[in-house]
Amino acid sequence: MKQKRFILPESEIPTQWYNIQADMKTKPMPMLNPQTRQPLTAEDLYPIFCKECSQQELNTTDAWIDIPEEVLEKYCYYRSTPLVRAYGLEKALGTPAHIYFKNESASPIGSHKLNSALAQAYYCKQEGVTHVTTETGAGQWGAALSYATKVFGIECAVYQVKVSYEQKPYRRSIMQVFGAQVTPSPSMSTRAGKDILTANPNHQGSLGTAISEAIELARMTPNCKYALGSVLNHVSLHQTIIGLEAEKQMEMAGEYPDVVIACFGGGSNFAGISFPFMRHNILDGKKTRFVAAEPDNCPKLSQGKFEYDFADEAGYTPLMPMFTLGHKFQPALIHAGGLRFHGAGVIVSQLLKDGLMEVADISQIDSFSAGCLFAKAEGIIPAPESCHAIAAAIQEANKCKESGEEKVILFNLSGHGLVDMAAYDQYLSGAMMR
Amino acid sequence: MKQKRFILPESEIPTQWYNIQADMKTKPMPMLNPQTRQPLTAEDLYPIFCKECSQQELNTTDAWIDIPEEVLEKYCYYRSTPLVRAYGLEKALGTPAHIYFKNESASPIGSHKLNSALAQAYYCKQEGVTHVTTETGAGQWGAALSYATKVFGIECAVYQVKVSYEQKPYRRSIMQVFGAQVTPSPSMSTRAGKDILTANPNHQGSLGTAISEAIELARMTPNCKYALGSVLNHVSLHQTIIGLEAEKQMEMAGEYPDVVIACFGGGSNFAGISFPFMRHNILDGKKTRFVAAEPDNCPKLSQGKFEYDFADEAGYTPLMPMFTLGHKFQPALIHAGGLRFHGAGVIVSQLLKDGLMEVADISQIDSFSAGCLFAKAEGIIPAPESCHAIAAAIQEANKCKESGEEKVILFNLSGHGLVDMAAYDQYLSGAMMR
Repeated sequence: MKQKRFILPESEIPTQWYNIQADMKTKPMPMLNPQTRQPLTAEDLYPIFCKECSQQELNTTDAWIDIPEEVLEKYCYYRSTPLVRAYGLEKALGTPAHIYFKNESASPIGSHKLNSALAQAYYCKQEGVTHVTTETGAGQWGAALSYATKVFGIECAVYQVKVSYEQKPYRRSIMQVFGAQVTPSPSMSTRAGKDILTANPNHQGSLGTAISEAIELARMTPNCKYALGSVLNHVSLHQTIIGLEAEKQMEMAGEYPDVVIACFGGGSNFAGISFPFMRHNILDGKKTRFVAAEPDNCPKLSQGKFEYDFADEAGYTPLMPMFTLGHKFQPALIHAGGLRFHGAGVIVSQLLKDGLMEVADISQIDSFSAGCLFAKAEGIIPAPESCHAIAAAIQEANKCKESGEEKVILFNLSGHGLVDMAAYDQYLSGAMMR
Repeated sequence: MKQKRFILPESEIPTQWYNIQADMKTKPMPMLNPQTRQPLTAEDLYPIFCKECSQQELNTTDAWIDIPEEVLEKYCYYRSTPLVRAYGLEKALGTPAHIYFKNESASPIGSHKLNSALAQAYYCKQEGVTHVTTETGAGQWGAALSYATKVFGIECAVYQVKVSYEQKPYRRSIMQVFGAQVTPSPSMSTRAGKDILTANPNHQGSLGTAISEAIELARMTPNCKYALGSVLNHVSLHQTIIGLEAEKQMEMAGEYPDVVIACFGGGSNFAGISFPFMRHNILDGKKTRFVAAEPDNCPKLSQGKFEYDFADEAGYTPLMPMFTLGHKFQPALIHAGGLRFHGAGVIVSQLLKDGLMEVADISQIDSFSAGCLFAKAEGIIPAPESCHAIAAAIQEANKCKESGEEKVILFNLSGHGLVDMAAYDQYLSGAMMR
C-alpha cells in the first residue's frame, strides 16, 4: 500500500522558527517611522505591539528563533499537520506530477492562522497584556486569535471586515463561542471607522480599514496590544513551522519539491510554506520555484508598485517598502476575504523584486472550479483563499501533463471552507462574479 | 513536555473490524421479515442493501472481518484519527480525572461517518451498483456518503430531514459540492413522503421518515441500493475501527479507560468506540463502564420499550428487536439531528437489556453548555451530537472531582460543529429551547 499521509512524531516537531532575513543576500529596505521618516526601531512599535514581536519584527541577524516551550506545547495539540500525497487529484488531472499538500486545515481552528495566534497571545500574556485587538477578513485569523487568547486568559476584540461579517456569519459565531467581542468594520467605534463611513456610508470594509480600527482601539485601551494576522515579518516567522515540518515530511516521502505554491494575502501563509525551502535555494543552490497565487482582482504582486506605503487605510502603521496597490485601494468583494489586501509583506516584496519567487493571478471562478475539483478528489472542502493555491497547483500539474514531466508540486492547504459554503452555493448556481 | 496527542503509524492501523456479536454471551434476538414474521435471511435484504453488507448484518459467528484493501487505503488518508488527552478541559473542570477524546472530527468530512460510508460505497461498487440512496439528519452521514460514492464513481441521492435541511444549509451545500442530489424529506418524490405530507403538510421530517423515502427510491431505481448511516449491525461493525485504534492509542498513553462515552442516535458511533473495549469486559473480566449519551427529549434508551419495531416511519425495514419510542414517534426539533431517531440498534439494545451499558439523558441546553466549555478549553467546536457525549463526560469528571478519584474517561468526539453555528448562535443568545 502506498503511503499517502506523513505525520511527524512529537519528538520531530521543529523547536525553532526560521528567520529568512538572516540569510537573504539583499536585505529588505528598512521600515520607516512615518513621523520621523527614520528607520523604524523596536521602541517605535512598543505602543502597538508586544515587545517580543516588535523585536522579532526587526531581527535581521538570527536565522533561528526558539519557539517558547509553552507555545510548542500548544502546537503539539495539532502539529505536525499532515503532509498528504494527493493521489486523488493526480488521478483526476491525469498528470504525471507528484502533488503533495500540507494540510493546515487540520488545525482545530481550521487554518494555519493558529500558528502565529498562539505565539502572539503567549508573548502578550508574558508581558502582562490583558486585552488584544485585531482585524480579520474571512474570519480565519479572528477565530484563531479568539481561541489563542482564551488559551492564555486574555480578552480579545476583533474588527471583522463588514462584507465578510455578512458573507460568513458562522465565523463571527465561532469567534463568539471563544468569547471574543466582534465588530463589523468600518464601525462607528473608532475615529478611523467614523472618517471612512462619513466619506462613504456604504463602505464594505477591507483588511486595511479593519487594521486601522484595531490599532486605534489598542492605542486607546490601557494594557492592550494589537496583533496582526499576516503581512509582518514576525507573523511570517511564526508560520515557518509549516515549511519546516513539510521539509521533514517530504524527506519521509523521499522527495523534494520542484515547485512550492501558496495563496497570497499579506504573505505569511506563503512565507510559512516557502521560506524553509527557499533557504536551500539561497544557501545550497537548490532550484525550487516558489509561486504566490493571488486573486486577479487584487493583484498587488503582479501589478502593484514597489514603494513605501502603509499597511492600513488610515495610515497608522509604519511605512513599509512593499508591492502595493495603494493603501486606499478597495479590493473587489471576492469571497477570499483573507486575500483582500492591498499590499505585500516587506520580506516577500524584496524576494519578488529579487526574482526569488513568481506570481500566478487567479480569477475567482477559476479558484472555485479548482476547489470543487479538489474537494471531489480529496474529500476536503478548501477555503476560498486556499482555492487559489489549488488552482495554481493544477496549472503546474497540467503543464507536467503536457510535457510528461514527473515534477514534485507542494502546496499549502491553508484552511478548510466549511464556513464558506454560501460561496460554493453561489459558484454551483452559476451566480458567482468572475 | 507531556504528550497530548497519540497517532498510530500507518503500519499500526487495524486491518480488521470487530464483530461483537460473535463474543456476546446472549445473542440478539433475530430480526424478522415483516411479511413472513420469520427470522430474516441475507436474501431478504438483497433487494435493499448490497450483498456484502447484508451478509455482515447477520453474521453472528466471525469476531473479526477483514477490511478490504481498497477501503483501508482510503482510511489511511485520515486515519488514525488522533487520540487527545484533554488537559485543557481537565484544567477548566478542576478534575483529577484523566480525560481523553478520540477526535473523529479530524476526518476530511468532519465526522466518524466516513468510516462506514467508504465501506458501503466500496462494496456497492464491487457488486456493480451504480446508484446509492440514503437518508441524513444533520447531514454528517449524507456528506460522508456523498464523498465516498464520489471516490468509487457511484451516483448518490440523499433525503435530508427537512428541519436539518433548513437549519443547516451548509451541509446541503457540502453534499452538492461532492455531486450528490439532495432532497428535503418528507418530499413528494416518494409514496412514503406523499402519505406523510398528506397526513401532516407541516411534517418537519425525522430520520425514520427519510429512511422510508430512501428505501423506496432504491427499490424503484434499477441498479440502485440503499445505504444506512447508523442503527444496523454492519454500520456498527465498520465503526469499530474507532475503538480498535483507541485501544492501541490508550496503550501508547499508558492508560486504560474506566468509562467510555459516546453520543447515541442509532448506536453506531457508540458501538464504534465501545465494542472493542467491551470485548475485554466480556472476555477478560475488565470492568469498564460504557455510557450512551442520548437527548432527554428522544429518550429511546431510558424510556423506550424493548420490542419488535421498524427502523423507519413507513415500515419498509425488517422488524428489529430494539428499544424504541415507536416508529411513528416525532422527535423534538433539537439541533442534534443525528440523534433524532426513535430506536436503537439490535446489538446495543441487547447489551442495554443485559446491563452491559448505561444511559445518560442530556438536555439540549446542557449539551451546548458543555460544547462551549469544551470549545474554549480545546479549540474544537463540537457537533451538537458530540456535545451530548461531552456533557456526559463532564458529569463523570465532576463526580471524580467530588470523590477525588483519578479515573480515566474516554469519549468519542464524533464530529465538529462548524456547520452548526446557527445553533450556537441560538444558545449564546439565550433563545435555545431546553
